[in-house]
Amino acid sequence: MIIVKIGGGSQINIAGIAADLAAIDTPYVIVHGANALRDKLAEDLGQPKQVLTSVKGYTSVYSDEKLLDVMMMAYAGLRNKRIVEQCQQYGINAVGLTGLDGKAVQGKRNPGIRVYEGKKLKIVRDYSGKPQSVNAALLQLLLDNGYVPVLTVPIIDEQNIAINTENDDVVRVLQQALEADTVINLIEAPGFLADKDDAASLIETIPSATLEAREQQVEGRMKRKMLAVRKLFEQGVSKVIICDGRSEHPVKDALAGKGTVIE
Amino acid sequence: MIIVKIGGGSQINIAGIAADLAAIDTPYVIVHGANALRDKLAEDLGQPKQVLTSVKGYTSVYSDEKLLDVMMMAYAGLRNKRIVEQCQQYGINAVGLTGLDGKAVQGKRNPGIRVYEGKKLKIVRDYSGKPQSVNAALLQLLLDNGYVPVLTVPIIDEQNIAINTENDDVVRVLQQALEADTVINLIEAPGFLADKDDAASLIETIPSATLEAREQQVEGRMKRKMLAVRKLFEQGVSKVIICDGRSEHPVKDALAGKGTVIE
Repeated sequence: MIIVKIGGGSQINIAGIAADLAAIDTPYVIVHGANALRDKLAEDLGQPKQVLTSVKGYTSVYSDEKLLDVMMMAYAGLRNKRIVEQCQQYGINAVGLTGLDGKAVQGKRNPGIRVYEGKKLKIVRDYSGKPQSVNAALLQLLLDNGYVPVLTVPIIDEQNIAINTENDDVVRVLQQALEADTVINLIEAPGFLADKDDAASLIETIPSATLEAREQQVEGRMKRKMLAVRKLFEQGVSKVIICDGRSEHPVKDALAGKGTVIE
Repeated sequence: MIIVKIGGGSQINIAGIAADLAAIDTPYVIVHGANALRDKLAEDLGQPKQVLTSVKGYTSVYSDEKLLDVMMMAYAGLRNKRIVEQCQQYGINAVGLTGLDGKAVQGKRNPGIRVYEGKKLKIVRDYSGKPQSVNAALLQLLLDNGYVPVLTVPIIDEQNIAINTENDDVVRVLQQALEADTVINLIEAPGFLADKDDAASLIETIPSATLEAREQQVEGRMKRKMLAVRKLFEQGVSKVIICDGRSEHPVKDALAGKGTVIE
């Protein structure tokens, strides 16, 4: 079982990915983002992203009801259905699902973020949280009957409310539930770069035992990504491939060992 | 089997519908619209609806790629996922699907509309068409495993391309494929009105044999709706209930015989 994670950038070659996937025999599940689309839609609708800074200095996107609406439009609506359409064009009988559908991905809502409003301490609660479990029976039912699940956010919380979450965390619970041995991560870069501004600094292989040390060398979003990869190995994945989703054959390239292979 | 069609108006009481559905034992499938949401989104994005007038004088919405994008956001994204969320709140394990997902609803693309551009005759082809068949095996698979399909547009054409269609036509192919005996149509009116501007002019019962005569008495959109109802009877439905989707208990009311009962 393979999990194919398609990044949410605007330059990802969806048609190329679908063409490649149509040619492989291993069962797979797709998880995708849509952050470029979401940001553009939010901007077009005059709803700029609000970022919260916790008292400890961590930043996070404030996921209010309106942001969830925008996410449903961008992730579950436009991006998901255009990916499903591309899959169908190449003979893949895709079924798009959010975590709400059939409770495919269930999570726990965040208790609240402590922020300062002026000098006053306040707890802000939004519609965000962490995935905890997967309805593996539903995904297996679809796979057994020839359908390919195409998953995206939002997910469903313990009160059956739609919440935002990180797709990396969705991949983590999925990998565990489906016992996937390989995760392919298609991004807008050639792979993991030693210097994020230099495409030529691609690191071709990373032994999984050295992931923790790598994590210390990088910053911000990439640090979180490396942590997510490390967690996958902790729970039994055997290979993670980070590869360029913009190329002509993103999945074929990944399976041929291009990009960064971590094992 | 019941088909519950939820209109696309902004005042429809989705929570009330979900609460009612949670209490019924008959299996059902939901089909929904989102026209109010689509029109608002198109306006907010500065993409006003374009209407084509054919050489024969018929009008139709011009469904170009951008309109399809908006439909995916409004129907498949926001409206579908908020309905699924409401269902989940009432214990209904809903799974939202467009006609693209698992090829749930397959159709045939319109060949083109003959329009005048100035004095020149032109054929305009857009992304619209008519549903022809349903993947009943997928819907039955979900129903047999305790899931409730929540269907909406777009559907998939013979080239596996997303196309727009009328939800009334989706209901028609669904009714036939699932051999549903009852169709509940929840709208923003008390039912079928003799005078569309007078809520007190509700017609409580219509014998199905008189539908053709009724059709001659009404105009525009309502004429198309009556034709759609007549077709359902031609293909074997036993009851169609047109009822107010804005009330506290839209489905309970419909099953208790409120609104317009056609049989």
